This record gives sequence, structure tokens and C-alpha cells, in this order.
Amino acid sequence: MTRKIQEIIKEMTLEEKAGLCSGLNFWHLKGIERLGIPSVMVTDGPHGLRKQQEGADHLGLYNSVPSTCFPSAVGLASTWDRKLIYDVGVALGEECQAEDVAVLLGPGANIKRSPLCGRNFEYFSEDPYLSTEMAANHIKGVQSQGVGTSLKHFAANNQEHRRMSVDAVIDERTLREIYLASFEGAVKEGQPWTVMCSYNRVNGVYASESERLLTEILRDEWGFEGFVVSDWGAVNERVDALKAGLELEMPSSNGLGDKKIVAAVKDGSLLMETLDQAVERLLTIIFKYVDNKKENASYDKDEHHLLARKVASDGMVLLKNEENVLPLQKDSKIAILGEFVEKPRFQGGGSSHINPTKLENALDEMKMLAENESNISYAKGYTLDSNDTDQSLLDEAIEVAKNADTAVLFVGLPDRFESEGYDREHLRIPDNHRALIEEVSKVQPNVVVVLSNGSPIEMPWLGNVKAVLEGYLGGQATAGAIADLLYGKVSPSGKLAETFPQMLEHNPSHLNFPGEGDKVEYKEGIFVGYRYYDTKKVEPLFPFGFGLSYTQFEYSNIQVSKSNITDEESIDITVTVKNVGSVPGKDVVQLYVRDVKSNVIRPEKELKGFEKVELKPGEEKQVQFSLDKRSFAYYNTEIQDWHVETGDFELLVGKSSKDIVLSETVHVTSTVDLPFKVHRNSTAGDILAHPELAPVFQEYMANVMTEGPFANIKEGDDGYDMFMAMMRYMPIRGMVAFNSEKFSDEMLNELINKLNRAAEDAVKSK
Amino acid sequence: MTRKIQEIIKEMTLEEKAGLCSGLNFWHLKGIERLGIPSVMVTDGPHGLRKQQEGADHLGLYNSVPSTCFPSAVGLASTWDRKLIYDVGVALGEECQAEDVAVLLGPGANIKRSPLCGRNFEYFSEDPYLSTEMAANHIKGVQSQGVGTSLKHFAANNQEHRRMSVDAVIDERTLREIYLASFEGAVKEGQPWTVMCSYNRVNGVYASESERLLTEILRDEWGFEGFVVSDWGAVNERVDALKAGLELEMPSSNGLGDKKIVAAVKDGSLLMETLDQAVERLLTIIFKYVDNKKENASYDKDEHHLLARKVASDGMVLLKNEENVLPLQKDSKIAILGEFVEKPRFQGGGSSHINPTKLENALDEMKMLAENESNISYAKGYTLDSNDTDQSLLDEAIEVAKNADTAVLFVGLPDRFESEGYDREHLRIPDNHRALIEEVSKVQPNVVVVLSNGSPIEMPWLGNVKAVLEGYLGGQATAGAIADLLYGKVSPSGKLAETFPQMLEHNPSHLNFPGEGDKVEYKEGIFVGYRYYDTKKVEPLFPFGFGLSYTQFEYSNIQVSKSNITDEESIDITVTVKNVGSVPGKDVVQLYVRDVKSNVIRPEKELKGFEKVELKPGEEKQVQFSLDKRSFAYYNTEIQDWHVETGDFELLVGKSSKDIVLSETVHVTSTVDLPFKVHRNSTAGDILAHPELAPVFQEYMANVMTEGPFANIKEGDDGYDMFMAMMRYMPIRGMVAFNSEKFSDEMLNELINKLNRAAEDAVKSK
Repeated sequence: MTRKIQEIIKEMTLEEKAGLCSGLNFWHLKGIERLGIPSVMVTDGPHGLRKQQEGADHLGLYNSVPSTCFPSAVGLASTWDRKLIYDVGVALGEECQAEDVAVLLGPGANIKRSPLCGRNFEYFSEDPYLSTEMAANHIKGVQSQGVGTSLKHFAANNQEHRRMSVDAVIDERTLREIYLASFEGAVKEGQPWTVMCSYNRVNGVYASESERLLTEILRDEWGFEGFVVSDWGAVNERVDALKAGLELEMPSSNGLGDKKIVAAVKDGSLLMETLDQAVERLLTIIFKYVDNKKENASYDKDEHHLLARKVASDGMVLLKNEENVLPLQKDSKIAILGEFVEKPRFQGGGSSHINPTKLENALDEMKMLAENESNISYAKGYTLDSNDTDQSLLDEAIEVAKNADTAVLFVGLPDRFESEGYDREHLRIPDNHRALIEEVSKVQPNVVVVLSNGSPIEMPWLGNVKAVLEGYLGGQATAGAIADLLYGKVSPSGKLAETFPQMLEHNPSHLNFPGEGDKVEYKEGIFVGYRYYDTKKVEPLFPFGFGLSYTQFEYSNIQVSKSNITDEESIDITVTVKNVGSVPGKDVVQLYVRDVKSNVIRPEKELKGFEKVELKPGEEKQVQFSLDKRSFAYYNTEIQDWHVETGDFELLVGKSSKDIVLSETVHVTSTVDLPFKVHRNSTAGDILAHPELAPVFQEYMANVMTEGPFANIKEGDDGYDMFMAMMRYMPIRGMVAFNSEKFSDEMLNELINKLNRAAEDAVKSK
Repeated sequence: MTRKIQEIIKEMTLEEKAGLCSGLNFWHLKGIERLGIPSVMVTDGPHGLRKQQEGADHLGLYNSVPSTCFPSAVGLASTWDRKLIYDVGVALGEECQAEDVAVLLGPGANIKRSPLCGRNFEYFSEDPYLSTEMAANHIKGVQSQGVGTSLKHFAANNQEHRRMSVDAVIDERTLREIYLASFEGAVKEGQPWTVMCSYNRVNGVYASESERLLTEILRDEWGFEGFVVSDWGAVNERVDALKAGLELEMPSSNGLGDKKIVAAVKDGSLLMETLDQAVERLLTIIFKYVDNKKENASYDKDEHHLLARKVASDGMVLLKNEENVLPLQKDSKIAILGEFVEKPRFQGGGSSHINPTKLENALDEMKMLAENESNISYAKGYTLDSNDTDQSLLDEAIEVAKNADTAVLFVGLPDRFESEGYDREHLRIPDNHRALIEEVSKVQPNVVVVLSNGSPIEMPWLGNVKAVLEGYLGGQATAGAIADLLYGKVSPSGKLAETFPQMLEHNPSHLNFPGEGDKVEYKEGIFVGYRYYDTKKVEPLFPFGFGLSYTQFEYSNIQVSKSNITDEESIDITVTVKNVGSVPGKDVVQLYVRDVKSNVIRPEKELKGFEKVELKPGEEKQVQFSLDKRSFAYYNTEIQDWHVETGDFELLVGKSSKDIVLSETVHVTSTVDLPFKVHRNSTAGDILAHPELAPVFQEYMANVMTEGPFANIKEGDDGYDMFMAMMRYMPIRGMVAFNSEKFSDEMLNELINKLNRAAEDAVKSK
């Protein structure tokens, strides 16, 4: 239905307009009955619907209606499966329709800068390309159901520590290549109905008041068409925020923000046009929901639960599997240990906390898949409410483990370790979990560790165990998914979307996380995640992109459509993948790009493509990737644009960031000349390296320098290397100082002018 | 003799004054005969006198008069011996007097940020305290002879790559704690007659034009009384440099600089007072030399050579000595291999290149110390003029090695690998040196590697050899010093003044060295050298402060004079050191300080004291350290001063940065309150952590918050942790937004005013 939104706006009073720019309460926007504007609801996400029941507390923390709890973002991302994420989005959209929710608050596309960030489980990856692809498909899935999303938290909200006030100091290139890039693709590809600004400041300005972020970059550059909503309580000065491009303040500020807007319009400090534009954007989305509302919508809880189980198993990552201790034999005796068996940890704490429609536990699920229920024995091993070892529980677990063929230990991070609102301070699991691993592995040679956690942990006990399955936070069907994988009903195909460091200190942000006072400096720059570990040659515990399978895949026949392109062309790469093992499985083929030689600082390699393929034993498929300018580019702050340096690029196809199997080289030629300005401190070396300037310089110098004091030294002379280095690096003003009888200041200025004219001509002629 | 310098200045013409501010030629200042101002000479150093012979080339590269070549700074620093450095300074001063040199250009106090810096051999350390102590004693030694020094290159000249134009971008705290600190102590303690400014820019401003560096910090803060000289060719705009505090431009600019100064005075853009002050400073130093000139001075070449040998052996570092393969037995058969045996590498390339009075070689020196000359066999193994393996030379060396009890391999970096003017690009030794090690170690179980190099190298072959002696660049007596150590005539006592990384990539500057274009960002900040390796837990190949001996030392009985001090008091620490081995030796007791808990980012520990002691077998001595405010402080950029946070500090006594043997804790109380300004985005947590503000805040809030929406949640409730974290980090403006019925903007402003008054009162009452 097409509405005349402009007509509606004309009917509105100033107070009504201002009122529309903030919430009615914690979860609803204001409606205006006389104008047919309904009060629509928004609700926390992102991996489930957290719709608070009426009459619940004002903070919005408790008592939400049951909904399907899918794996947290960390689990979704580890599937590396665009289609699956989309399907989850569709299911979430269906649930929103059923619950009359207009906008689901998610997905989160913040980058995992540090494994300590308490909210990492809600984010996808340390890599912006993987993150933005996952976010885009999440958005497209939800929105295919006529329900909006809210891509959050924009931007640079990469820690919970002082998140409401901290100033994230990040250089422009790092912002563009890492932290904004993670949003950029999702906005362009997914066009979310709303974007949620974050609490923090970015380079001194509150995200909620950053015209640069909310308007210039988000709308003008990326083409965002929806409205911007504040994170709950993120508005600092309401009028400044509105001017910057923040349309909706949430939650209700009890009329305070509205009053300030009204006053600002009245005193002329805020243009009515600005307010009208905000209202137009709000109404557009509100009516978009209204127009797409499905009456009497409902969804199939069981079907969604099964989807949750499928996604969960596809996102879990098999990190170690010595002597093929996994999959378990159905007839073998299995001890399953740890309180997580009874009480699975399946989601993180905070605003994303779901009241699940159903909740599996590992005891039941394992028994269902075992040949006989009696093959499964269970002991608690530890209690979740304490970090301290309960010796009698531990002893009991040891006894149970002794009498089994294999012990499967369910350990990880209890709820209190990870939540929105605060960061971790270390990467350890509780002492009693660690004790269980260490003591059981003394009596049982076949130990399998199943982890429930939202972000990397240290594994000093890794050498003591045969297998590790990273279960992450798998949602309400996490227990079933684990059982499916342990028994080989499903072959593991999840890959890490983040590096596991050997120890916290190795993380690139370590020296600067979480900052000093109210400032956090991102001094590691673009070297986030594997970009750092690769370039610094710091051996990770498990690399980005890594994950084992019960089958094996072979890559062959890499082909590129062209070996020479300009930065205006794209290129296709194909690779053949074959399942050479004995069971069906899925694999993620990863494509990284490496700039072989660069004048700017670049990481060793960067992910620029990935495809998940499913293959039966013996089956092979061709996987195709397409790369374009952006795949080879870095962000050049001088021209404020993405730029490709002319040169060779390696296309690296691998099974993880550390396991590159095939490669090809392509030459990319830039069609853009960077500006080059000559001044008295330009070096002779730089001028001579410039194809158009070198001849101008050489011609001018030919007569001058041959007789100068530098004329005596010859190649092969003692000190020649040092002399040449000195020449290369010498500012051209030095020619005057060292040789002022032959070379005057006036001549230098003449030369500089000649060179600058030649540089301008070179740019023009392109 | 007291001169009336002011009277002389009054006699000078404007042109004469301007003329005095630049060199006569490459090495001389201008004189003014009619006023009795002589033309004095300055000459390259720093570890020997490089006085160019008359009629040599204009660039000043060749043909210097013979002088004693002491070990390069890297070798001097590794002695960790203040007295010895002073003695070397005295000897250098004597040689200057003998050669009529007024100022010796050195020492260099730049920090070894990257092992790649081509000029590292001329610098002391990665640690500013060690560096500045060494520099101070060097200066005091030289100047005790009535000759000046030139502390260089001020500042942040930590690479040769683009050294004449590069902009070193360094945050203020890092500058103060690392790069300036390395000069600060030397200026304050040594009062060098001159300081040499560097070529590069620092945060956008040429060092030669930086009033901040040359005047505000160097003179006003540190009390420097001499004159500043440009590095040769470092002047960009002469008048700007003079205004900034650069008195002497070197070398001659052929009158160009003088003319600009004259013109500027005439057109009023330069005050005559500024020029007069510069001239006064120049004359003060010129006459200081004149007044201290020793007529017919001479020096004892043999004595200086012996000193050079002693210093060299004290600065060499025994890095590995498995099965006590060293010292060598006098009657055993020793194969000495490598062209370095004949042609020792004993100094680096560039301006510090000395023409030695005498030059030992290892073949002669080893034969002299062996029981029989015939015990020593020699093969060349490789040629120095190539990196490629010469198979016949290698085969010959293998044969010689086979027939010996022990093979001593002289390898390292040939001249062309390290020089002023360019940086290295990797840490490898030449392929033919590496091949010699690898092939010989296949046939000879007892391999000793003796290294000649000015900066760390990678050692992938370390596991193949039993011993490694880091000989550094030991000066003209390097061969004798090596022989003394190999045969145990001297027990090794050198300690690394720099970390040896396992590989280049591990160095903290790796991601940002040598920068992009004309900019290098010091993003690792204060985490230079061991400050980084310790804090990041990156295992070095050999840690800072490390070095083996032929004897053993035991530390005991650590005592502190007080366990509680204020930051206005100092504290003494004593430790007993005992030689519990069987031969005499020297040890370096190192004292590091660790801030146990800090609100600012600090390194794991920092060197704050060291003492070298000589002990006979069984002998023990008490070593004493004194610490003051600076030992505990960091540089606070807000108050622009050093600041100590109240709290516990660990005093760590060790044999290296990684080998801490004893420790004590002291509590330091700050006498300075940092400013605290409350605003609407101050967090409740910060206010509550402030002892004076917390009660004011609590009193005000008592009535307001008890009934707000936050009143419902209680400890133990689900989500309580997240809630509390939210509260702690919440900007106080949030109290209005969440609770505006009870808490108005006006109340918030009233509260902020109350809090700020309380904060001011707290500072005043101190």
C-alpha cells in the first residue's frame, strides 16, 4: 500500500513530530492514532526473539515470551554458510510476525578485537568480510518476512568495559578496513531497515552524535535508507544526535528528548526540515512493517527447533581428533561428565537472553543416539555455581570415567563468565572444569572435551586430551547437535571465525585493551585477528578458518579467468574440491589475497572469498569465487577511497588461514594515479621512482650535479653504499646546501615547479 | 681564563655573528681572527676519533688520522660498566687533545627500536635508563679532558630509512619515557658541551626546527647549557632553526644560511637578541675548549689499545655454553674457521669508521694463548665479499674441523650488512656463514660460534652448536679480547643491552617499521624491547640483560630501607652477591621495578638500577641501589609531569629481565592529586572510586535513586552482574534519561557543580 507520508507529516504538530523521535516506553515506538500511525514494537535479538511480556520490569531484562533460541552469532558465523544464516533469518522473521514485532534488534556486526569482550558471542568474527557476509544474510532472511532488523552497534563498540563513555581512538584506515567494513557490506547488500548506533565515542565523538558515521558514511556513501536508532540510553544531547542523523531515541526518555527537540526548533537551532526528514524515515519503516504485517501469523516450533539443531551442528568446530577418537562408536561405553550435561550453556547473558521454546540436554540426547541407554553413564563432576572443585563430585566422575571406553567432558564458561555489560579478564575456564579435565585424563586415555563458551579460552590441558569439540553457544538444540556430531550422525564442518591464541597476551589488542580511563587506542591498527598472527608469525593455538571433519577434502585445478586485470575489472577463480574420505561432509573453501609487494603496510593476507560445499564420498564440485577492485584494495586516506597498488597479488586457496593448499598470481594494474606533490623536502629517490617525474628531474640535474662535490664518488668505492642511500633519501633542498655555488634556492624552486607541473599533467592524462 | 664574551659580541658585525652560526667547511667552525676567536675543529666519533686529514674529500668519508678504535656503543653498553665507559671517554678525550679536536661528535643515545636500524651499533640499548647512564659516563669521561661531546641524534632518529625526511609520529608519553629519557639523564648528569639534532621530523616538525625539543625540553626542562649543532645537512629553514634553538649549522652551507640570518635580522623577522644568544652559546663552548687546550698533548697508543682490549672482552656476551665447552683447553686442538679470523669485523660503516692505530687478528691472538701454535689450525671457510658458498673453501674448513677437538667459527655480518645510511631488511647472516655452521656442526660435535655483528641476528642453527659468544663490534682489539675469553683468561661478563628475538617479526616495531612513505608511526608506544617481550609473553631467543659467565653468582639478603614511602622520598635496596664458582668474574646485578596494579598501561617491569661487581671465588659483596620518584613514575600527559600512582611496587633483582631471583615490595604514596573534572558523561563508577567525591555523590543520590526504576534489582537476581556493570559504567546523564520524573537536568547540573567543587577542594587541601 502506498501512503502519502509527506501528507501525514504535514498533518503533524511539532510536538507529535518530536514525539515520534523517541520511544513510548522500553520497547514501543509512539503511535498517533488520529493519523493512523500505530505504536509498533521492537525487540531484542539477534539469534532469537526476546519479546518482553507485558507488565515485566522496566529495564527489560526478564520474562520474555518463549521463542526459538538459535545459536549465538559466534555459532552462526562458524558455519560459514550464507544460506543457513539466511534460513535462520527467515525463521526469526516468522517468529516476529507471529509475535507482532516490527523490528528485531540485530544482527551485531562488531569485530572481535579481543577475546575478552563480554559480548563477543553476539558478534560474528574477527574478519570484516566474513562478518559482513553473515550479517547481510541474517538481515536478508529476517527482512524477507516483512520484519525489520537493526544492524548494531554502529560503530567500534568492541568492548563492554566503559562501553557507555569510552572513546575508541582508531585511525581512518583501520576504521574503514576493519571496523566499518564489517558493517558496510551488510548495509549495501542487506539494506537493514534500521541501524543501531553504539554507546561509545569514536575518535572523540559519540557515535550517537557522529554526522560522519550516521550520515556521511552510512547514508551518503553506503546508501542506507532506513532509520538510525540509539542503543538503549546512548543519546547524549538529543538535538545534536538528531542533526547527526539519529532518528529514534530509545527507550523513552520520559519526554525529555522530545522537549529538547521542540525547543530547538522553536529557537531556530534545529531546522524543521531536519525533523521532518527524520519523521519521514521513521514513518517509512513503520508503514513498511504495517504493510507487510501478516495477520494471524504463526510458526512451527518443532521445525524451528530442528533448524536450530542443524545450524548448531554445522557451526560447531572440531579442533582436535587424535587417533580418530571421534566419532564415538554406538556400542561403546561412554562416560559423560560435567554439570553442563544436565544444564547446557546454550546462550550468553544480557539483552540477547532468550526464553527457549524447548531445551535439550546432553544426557537425553546421548542416550537416544547410543545403541543402549546403558552405554551412557553420567557424573556431574563439578557444580556450575562455583569455581572451586568439589572433591566428592570429582572423585565420582573419575570413577565413572575409569569404567568407560571414552570420557566426554562437558566444560567451558558458565554464564557469569560472559555477558553483555562486562568483559572477561582472562581466558581461563573455571578451576573445577580444568581439574575435571586434568584428573580424568589421568585415568582415562580417551578423553573428549566438549566446550560451551562464547569466545576463545586457553587450553593448557590440550595435550592431555584426544579430542576437542568447540560447541560454542549452540542455542536450545545445542545438546542434540553435540550428540549428532559426537556419534557421527553429522560430520563436523564448522570453521573458526576467530583465532584462538595460545594465551591472552598474544592477542593483538592486549597492550591497549580495554584502554586507559575513558580512552581506548586501537594501536594494533589493521592487524586484528589472523592479520596479526600471520604477519607477526605468532603461532596461534588454533588459526582462523580452522576446523576438522570426519572426512577429507582435496583441492585441485585452480584456475583464474585472467592473469592480468585493471582495477576496474573483476576476475573469477575456480577450484575443484573432492571428498576423498569415506563419509559425507561439508567443507569451507577459503580464498585469501596477498599483496606481494606494497608501499603501504598491509597484512600478510586477507580473506576475500569463501564457499561452503557439501560432498558425498568420492564426489567433487567446482567452487567459484569472484574478486573485484575491493578484493585487492586498501583504504587510502589521502584520496579517501579504496586504492589498488599496481602489482602482483597472490590468490591463496586454503582450508584455514594457516593451511594454504593452492595459489595463483594475478597482476592488477591501477587506473588511478595517486597525487604526488613535490616540495623542498621531497627526496631525490621518490622523484626518481616516479615514471613521469624522473626524466624531468634527470634532465634538469644533468648539468648541475656532474661537477658538484658528489662527483668524486664511484660505484665500488669504500662507502659507496652509504653514499647512495644518503642520496636516495636526501631532500632535494640538500642540493642547495651542499652545492650552493652551482645550485641556488631559485633554481630549486624552478625545479620544484617544473616537477609539480609534470605531476599534474600525468594525472590529467589518465 | 674568564673572557668577557658579551664584550666580544658587541664588537662583532651582524655578518660575523651570522657567520659564526655555520661551519667554515666540513669540520671546522669559523674563527674571527681580529677578535681572537679561533676556528676550532669538531670530529666524528663516538668510539674513536675520526679526524679527517687535510685535503681529503669534501664529504668527509675517507682518510682519517689513526686513532684507537674502541668497541662500538653496542659493545660498550654490554659491559654495563659505568666506570669503564668513563675510562674510554677519558682516553678519547686525550686523543682529541692530541689531535686538537674541540668536540668529539658522540655519543649516540638513540634507542634501538628495531634490530634492523643500520646504525644500531652506534647506539647503546633498547632501554633508556641503561642508555642514558652509558651516555652520561661517556660524556663525563671525554669532557674531563677539556674536550666537548655532542650527544646525538636528538631526537627519535631510530632508523636510517629516509632518515633525512621521515616524520616519526610518537605519542608524548612514549617520547618522554623511552626516546627522550635516553637523552635526559645524559644531559642532566653529563652536561654535554653540545647536542646534535637529528635529520628527521618528530610529530611533523623537523628536529632542527623544534623549539619544543631544542629549547623547551632540552634547555628549560633539562638545563642544557651548551649549544645545539645540526646533523650534517639537517637544517631545513635556517632562520626557523635558529629561532628554535639550533645555534650551529654544519657543515658549511657555503654562506647560504648566514645570508638568510642576516636578511631576517634586517627585515625584523629575527630578533638580534636571539642571534646574540646563539653567538654567546657558541663562544662559551669555543673558549671553553681554548681554555682547556693542553699544549703538546699526546697519548700512549699501547695503553689505549690495552684499554680497548679490556673493554672489548668486558662487553662480549656469552650466550650459550653447553657442557662447558668454553673455556678452551690450552692443549687442545682448535680449528678456527672463517675469513673473519684474518680480517676481523671490528666496527660499523659510516661516519664512525675509524682508522685504527693497530689491528689484531684472531689467528695471531689464538696462537699466542694456545700452549702450542700448532694447536691452532685455520681455514677460511667462506669469503667476505660474497654471500655464496665457495664449496672448496667450505670443504677445506670441514676437513680442518674434523681433525680438531673443537671448532671455533668466526661468523656474523660483513661490513655491507650494517652501516649508517641504510637499514637491514632481515636478521640473517650470509648464506655462506650459515652453511659453515651447519656443515661443520655435522662433523664436529664441539662447535663454538663467535659472532661479529652490530645488532641481533636470527640463529636457526643455535641447536647445532655448543657455544655462542656474541663478540659484537669490539674495536681494534676485538681479536685479542675474543681470544682472552675463549681461553678463559677473562671470564665473560657482558650482558645484552638489547633483546635478541627469535625472528624479526617478533620485534615490537615490526608492523610499523620503517613506516609508510615519509611517516613512521611508533604504534608500539612504550613497549620497546623487553618491555614488549615481557608484557606480551613473547619468548625471546635471548632476553635483555642476559649473559653467561665461567663462574656462578648467588644473590641473597635483599633489604629495603623503608617499606612505605611517599613519592618525595627515596629508598635504598641492598643485595648480597657471592661468587660461588671457581674462577674470578664479574656480574651485573639488575634491578627492575614493577607497578603491581595500575590505572594506566604500564610494562611488566622496567630497569631502574644496575651495578657491575667483580668477585674472586668465594668472595661476596653488598650491592646498593637507590630509587626515587622517577623510578616508580610514568609520564602523565595531562599534568605534563612524571607521576606515581599510589600503590605497591615490586622491586625485582635479577640476572636478566627474564631471570628474577629476589624481590621485595614497597608501597609508594603519591603526594600529587590528579585533576578530576566531573561532567555529564562522567561515570558513576569513577565518581564512587574517588575518595572525596564518593560521599558527596552518595548523599545527593540517597533520596533520588531509591525509588527509581533501578530500585527493583537485588544482588543475586538473574542479570545482577550485568546490571551492576551497567551502573558502574553509566554516564551520570543516564540518571536523567532513565529517571527524568525524579531527576531533572537541573538537578544533574547542580550535582556536577557540587562534585567539581569537592574535587577542587581536595586538590587545594593537599
